Amino acid sequence: MPSDDAFEQRLHARIHAPHWWLAFSGGLDSMVLLHRLVTFCREHTSPRLTALHVHHGLQADADQWAAFCQQVCANLGVECRVLSVTVQAGSGQSIEMAAREARYAALEACLNHGEVLWMAHHQDDQAETMLMRLLRGAGPAGLAGMPVERPLGEARVVRPLLDTPRQVLEVYARAHALEWVDDPSNDSLQMDRNFLRHEILPRLAERWPAYRQGMTRSAHWLREQASVEHEALHALLTPRMGQDRYGCFLVLDGLERWSGALRQALLRQWLQVLHWPMPSAARLASLDQDVLLSRPDAHGTWAMNDGVLSRFQQRLYRHPAILPPAEGVWAEPAHAFVMNADMRLHASAGTGAGCLCADFPLQVRYRQGGERCRPAGRGHSQTLKHLMQEYAVPPWLRDAVPLLYAGDTLVAVGDYWVCAEYEAAENQTGWKIHWEIAVAN
Amino acid sequence: MPSDDAFEQRLHARIHAPHWWLAFSGGLDSMVLLHRLVTFCREHTSPRLTALHVHHGLQADADQWAAFCQQVCANLGVECRVLSVTVQAGSGQSIEMAAREARYAALEACLNHGEVLWMAHHQDDQAETMLMRLLRGAGPAGLAGMPVERPLGEARVVRPLLDTPRQVLEVYARAHALEWVDDPSNDSLQMDRNFLRHEILPRLAERWPAYRQGMTRSAHWLREQASVEHEALHALLTPRMGQDRYGCFLVLDGLERWSGALRQALLRQWLQVLHWPMPSAARLASLDQDVLLSRPDAHGTWAMNDGVLSRFQQRLYRHPAILPPAEGVWAEPAHAFVMNADMRLHASAGTGAGCLCADFPLQVRYRQGGERCRPAGRGHSQTLKHLMQEYAVPPWLRDAVPLLYAGDTLVAVGDYWVCAEYEAAENQTGWKIHWEIAVAN
Repeated sequence: MPSDDAFEQRLHARIHAPHWWLAFSGGLDSMVLLHRLVTFCREHTSPRLTALHVHHGLQADADQWAAFCQQVCANLGVECRVLSVTVQAGSGQSIEMAAREARYAALEACLNHGEVLWMAHHQDDQAETMLMRLLRGAGPAGLAGMPVERPLGEARVVRPLLDTPRQVLEVYARAHALEWVDDPSNDSLQMDRNFLRHEILPRLAERWPAYRQGMTRSAHWLREQASVEHEALHALLTPRMGQDRYGCFLVLDGLERWSGALRQALLRQWLQVLHWPMPSAARLASLDQDVLLSRPDAHGTWAMNDGVLSRFQQRLYRHPAILPPAEGVWAEPAHAFVMNADMRLHASAGTGAGCLCADFPLQVRYRQGGERCRPAGRGHSQTLKHLMQEYAVPPWLRDAVPLLYAGDTLVAVGDYWVCAEYEAAENQTGWKIHWEIAVAN
Repeated sequence: MPSDDAFEQRLHARIHAPHWWLAFSGGLDSMVLLHRLVTFCREHTSPRLTALHVHHGLQADADQWAAFCQQVCANLGVECRVLSVTVQAGSGQSIEMAAREARYAALEACLNHGEVLWMAHHQDDQAETMLMRLLRGAGPAGLAGMPVERPLGEARVVRPLLDTPRQVLEVYARAHALEWVDDPSNDSLQMDRNFLRHEILPRLAERWPAYRQGMTRSAHWLREQASVEHEALHALLTPRMGQDRYGCFLVLDGLERWSGALRQALLRQWLQVLHWPMPSAARLASLDQDVLLSRPDAHGTWAMNDGVLSRFQQRLYRHPAILPPAEGVWAEPAHAFVMNADMRLHASAGTGAGCLCADFPLQVRYRQGGERCRPAGRGHSQTLKHLMQEYAVPPWLRDAVPLLYAGDTLVAVGDYWVCAEYEAAENQTGWKIHWEIAVAN
């Protein structure tokens, strides 16, 4: 095998990882990778290498393969762990999908933070993957094929042979008299791959001998475009993101001038940052139409799981669904009044303006409609509805704003204002009210 | 042919164009499109339709084809123009590339503002194009294949059959007993296409009967991503673009925290906005490294054609190359002093601070090095070098700043400042100097 700078570089770049793992099926590709890794490890101070052989229990010869893999590793002085998995296809899942899931789960369970799992996918695998995805109508991310490197749990999967044609691996295997297992598996994915591998790609190679390199180049451009797009969206998103007492928010100013596609891409990236479960393209388009493009005063809202996205003025808020708050008696300022699992009232001693001058116990009630009141310092009373708009209380909280009553008299509204005649005078002590709202999902 | 909504919609969307043109080779595809257009025109009030047949003069039967096309059109009552072109391959150009260029030039020459040129490319053409580009390593824009619509000069090329499989066209042609020309051209592009069409795609269709629709979907996603990326870059670019007396500029603040790929994508888009000839990827990367990432005081500069990109402080300026300015005598304030093709000095009457109080004629000279002077209102003199930095004169202009002398005494520096003792007192009249710099390329 000719000296392969990219290959060596990929190993060197991970030489300080705490542990190296190899996904080792015993086939040609992973056999060559095992040998190259062992050679590298002998020549360099590298992390300990452990081979992982997943025993799917699906083929008659599976026990024999596992034994073969262990023997090969033993001969090379490499530890080999056999990971037995039980493959059970869920509803709507093919046995291959289930096997893939079980395989990755078993591999991931071995990996710790910062470790590397080497996988032996090569350039022909990549060409097959890209072509299959194109024929099936994948988007740009899918068309780019497999990445050289990606996270798996807290570790990284790295494919150092992804630019190497399969033929080069065969030449290496023969030159080193390697033996390997031929998996006769005939699952439909494999069938599609085999069809491309044996029926299509050799014919393409006749006319375009460099087609693999061509596709590798295309994959590179696709990846670069995807990463530029991601970074550009991030740069647009960052100054629009924020958090206040009502939740995390996205600033909507000017977004109505963007195309729907860009607006939805921004939304998608924001939801990713919030770890919000990704909605389908159709749901996202409806969020865009019904909430982002609604009139600023329309207070569009959009619930999913436990979280809610609500538009308020020029912001889209992510906040928890509002649980019904409890009425009751707030006995003494030393103890919080618990409204519900997400909200409570505290009081702290204070002096002068903004402090409530009324005796505990207080009654905690909520808006019924039609209430009026006069905030301290104002000449006349107004409806609560009007005042809540003026104080920019988000619509989803207006029925949960705690109204504090002394007897039958409204003396304070949340921590927004104290009512006239109940505010502490200058130098007079009173109670500063704090309405605490938990906004994390 | 089944009713094809997308097709009809594409025609309806262009029904108010001043004129419809059809690129009409006389082959199956354009023959079907001609018939469908004629049918549509009979059923709707649509623009006048003219067929354009390009006669390349490359095939023995070309005269016959032209005659056939004219006959078919005459039978349908459609005007047909034969455009004879002379195909001559330039150096490093294949005859096919030359033919394509000549063909599009001839077509474009017929088109006026807002008109539509219909072209008959179909879904199989698109699949072939995408596959060829993938095998050759195209980037995302190329992989997306042909667009349904694009500008050609001031008109639009529209391909209303791009989602229609070729087989559907054949069925239509048989059902309507159409005749058509079979072009036996064997150019290498055609050979590649024929190879895919006859050797590869039928085999793919066996295993993935819907592969054309798959690829059409991929093309759609690729296009959408490209347009999202373009729009996102535009949104990042807009607040960073500006223009002042020194040229158009790009604000560089914070760009050093971006990836090289995003920074270069932004640069590319800025250069496009400026109609700057697009540099190669390698040149762009060197512009990024040598100019954008240089120290803010390094004044990196980068010339191309007649234009120059220069970094000054936190901005990248596009300005013309500075022509050597002429020394001389500025005889009287009523006439401008011409420094060179891009720069001149004017004087306007004014009063008080900022106005020069000195008698014409004045001498116009330039910096030699070592000059000192004392701007009006300051306590002591400083070097010109220091003052030009202070007045934020861009480095590329410092040797072109006109120094105005009365005899041997420096009395004003460009329109930046008047020297002490030569400034008009309050209510005293004098001359306001204007240094005019043309910055358009």
